[in-house]
Amino acid sequence: MKAEIIAVGTELLLGQIVNSNARFLSLELAALGIDVYFQTVVGDNPARLQEAVEIARGRADILLFTGGIGPTEDDLTKETLAAVLGRDLHTDRIAMDQVERFFTDRGREMTENNRKQALMIDGATPLPNGTGLAVGLALAENGRFYIVLPGPPREMEPMFTEQAKPWLLQHALTDEMPLYSKMLKFAGIGESQLETRLIDLIRNQTDPTIAPYAKEGEVTIRISTKAPGEREAMEKLGKLQDKIQALLPEHMYADIDVPLEKIIVDWMADAGLTVSAAESCTGGLLMSSITSVPGSASMFLGGVVCYSNEMKQKLLNVPKDYLEGPDAPGAVSREVAEVLAEQVRMLTDTDFGLSITGVAGPAYSERKPVGLVYIGIAERGGRTEVFELNLSGNRETIRIRSVKSILYRLWRRLEEREDVETPLGGSDLA
Amino acid sequence: MKAEIIAVGTELLLGQIVNSNARFLSLELAALGIDVYFQTVVGDNPARLQEAVEIARGRADILLFTGGIGPTEDDLTKETLAAVLGRDLHTDRIAMDQVERFFTDRGREMTENNRKQALMIDGATPLPNGTGLAVGLALAENGRFYIVLPGPPREMEPMFTEQAKPWLLQHALTDEMPLYSKMLKFAGIGESQLETRLIDLIRNQTDPTIAPYAKEGEVTIRISTKAPGEREAMEKLGKLQDKIQALLPEHMYADIDVPLEKIIVDWMADAGLTVSAAESCTGGLLMSSITSVPGSASMFLGGVVCYSNEMKQKLLNVPKDYLEGPDAPGAVSREVAEVLAEQVRMLTDTDFGLSITGVAGPAYSERKPVGLVYIGIAERGGRTEVFELNLSGNRETIRIRSVKSILYRLWRRLEEREDVETPLGGSDLA
Repeated sequence: MKAEIIAVGTELLLGQIVNSNARFLSLELAALGIDVYFQTVVGDNPARLQEAVEIARGRADILLFTGGIGPTEDDLTKETLAAVLGRDLHTDRIAMDQVERFFTDRGREMTENNRKQALMIDGATPLPNGTGLAVGLALAENGRFYIVLPGPPREMEPMFTEQAKPWLLQHALTDEMPLYSKMLKFAGIGESQLETRLIDLIRNQTDPTIAPYAKEGEVTIRISTKAPGEREAMEKLGKLQDKIQALLPEHMYADIDVPLEKIIVDWMADAGLTVSAAESCTGGLLMSSITSVPGSASMFLGGVVCYSNEMKQKLLNVPKDYLEGPDAPGAVSREVAEVLAEQVRMLTDTDFGLSITGVAGPAYSERKPVGLVYIGIAERGGRTEVFELNLSGNRETIRIRSVKSILYRLWRRLEEREDVETPLGGSDLA
Repeated sequence: MKAEIIAVGTELLLGQIVNSNARFLSLELAALGIDVYFQTVVGDNPARLQEAVEIARGRADILLFTGGIGPTEDDLTKETLAAVLGRDLHTDRIAMDQVERFFTDRGREMTENNRKQALMIDGATPLPNGTGLAVGLALAENGRFYIVLPGPPREMEPMFTEQAKPWLLQHALTDEMPLYSKMLKFAGIGESQLETRLIDLIRNQTDPTIAPYAKEGEVTIRISTKAPGEREAMEKLGKLQDKIQALLPEHMYADIDVPLEKIIVDWMADAGLTVSAAESCTGGLLMSSITSVPGSASMFLGGVVCYSNEMKQKLLNVPKDYLEGPDAPGAVSREVAEVLAEQVRMLTDTDFGLSITGVAGPAYSERKPVGLVYIGIAERGGRTEVFELNLSGNRETIRIRSVKSILYRLWRRLEEREDVETPLGGSDLA
């Protein structure tokens, strides 16, 4: 089965956004055992889109489209595909109801252009949109398969995973042995270091396959195998997973695609432990990561963003002579990271207190270099640990890496405690 | 001048990396006034690459290739292009010297395959590689222009900027007028509502052009025109910009691509005003957005994440009977949003205090629906305003939209103050 991905949108040709949809779909199709031979990007122009469709029909069995199904006049994917296939369009009743309800629920008037989002090609299967208003579609004709998905990744990705993939498995991949995959997640280690540790397994791979998977800020390995059924697949994958975990026990935190903060929230909520945080240079990024996980309310109570020295003193009683004066260690120091972590823990009466203080840049601070960051972990009845980080990158990268570092350290601390159940995130989780 | 970008590399088709090269080149070409009509990705396969080249030759004047010019067996871009053009290849002497010197300098043996990196198509202009070993090339034939660049961005980007672009300006663009663009940024209005307000301008556009630009959580319009020089371009663009601003004065916040928080930070820093925040459901996201802007330290001092009712009482003295009890309004209420904003403002002694309290989901809370959020703005010596939001989407979307809403409201408040200089973000900013 050969596939072509056609991304529709002039903003791609103007270089305003990167084509992450093509990447997502390519990964997904590879996992299904489908070869992607071409990716094409074309603008919001009916003639050129039609040309791209015709070329793709000549060289692929499965054509996947993203973009061009929104409410604006530039959105023309369904209309163009219908024209190529010689079919008419109609308004999908269920999709139209969803669009109308969206506006009525908010007491807003629906502008006419929103009607387009419910367009459907005659004979196609609608793919409902759970995170937006534009309905997708799937269509089989003369041994070819057409999937039309929205442009915005947060609409396209769930629609592919929940709607298009099952449709493909049912209609296009009936003769294939299904491909089963697991995503192994790692923290506290970089991508090339991980690859180096696994180099023998990677070089000698046959079945299952091992693919490093580069996603911003995360380190992931995908292991895949074709098998007649799930039980046999999981057995094969489990053996390889065990080998990998044995090589990296201090870094593999899950065998499903979840962020590290989810594991931390689950472990702590189950163990009845709580955490608070005092953030300086990260300005709330750590706490917003923790609270992005549903259920965090049972283990995270609150914390403080003490961005200025004054606020470190006022909100957390950091002694002035730690911060200012010729002999002061300064805000970016082990001493202050330690005090912040302990003070916020005591103020909120939580089991753990976390702190981050550093120089995110671009300006240096206190004559300390950009990327110097101290992270602290205080523990009820236990020792406070402070780690010094020397991070590279821009302001945002340094902030993100600081947050990931402290989450990793907290994860390691939880593993060391005997009173916390620390199952691998994923299949083992209840 | 029509261009097509062809990225060569099976790792792209497997979804292992994203095609950032296409984005970079598209932006660069747009700035040169060259229209990119297609982007194609093809694997390390000579037959399919040849097909892609032939299709591109039929529809573009400028063909840019990235990737497939390294030392491995899979690298075949130059060979394939030469075959299509009916030309031979030779070894470029200067490039070969550079490759040999690289190995001698390191006391390493040069493997034979490295010789490929110095390959040159007969009659082409070599483009030296300052950050790697693979030499690029530029070639003009029968009114078409071919540029071959390396795959790794850190080699491709400087080679384009320093070598390919001057070559294009000299050989291909002697008659073109450059394209000038401005990005107009809007807040407090949705994409389709924006388009509806501008529908006449959009429908009747000729020159400059108007393109809505969809980026997650942001609403942007790009206006573009070709002109012989910058002064004339800015005059044309300025007239259209003024028309657009007149239609949307309460929403257009910048004419360069910056986030709203940057404008807020700049205005407040210039006016010597400060702000603090108390966040519940957003857990630090608002404060991390403000602190993502360099220079925020002069206007943002700190704040509190009061995720639990206990912390709202403990950290900000919210009265218990506001939060609990049969007659209590509850944490998600106008009353509590008001108190939080005022309390954090007084605690930190800032000019503005912001608050966010709501139900981010997926679980409802206090028998209130997911998406119900109250945002508060307290002002020194002024009135506290609270807004009720009814947001849709998942947990992360609701949190992001809450933050964007309160930033918008703060922006509007600053505009109303007479003591704050509120220039449009962008050209007018110092």
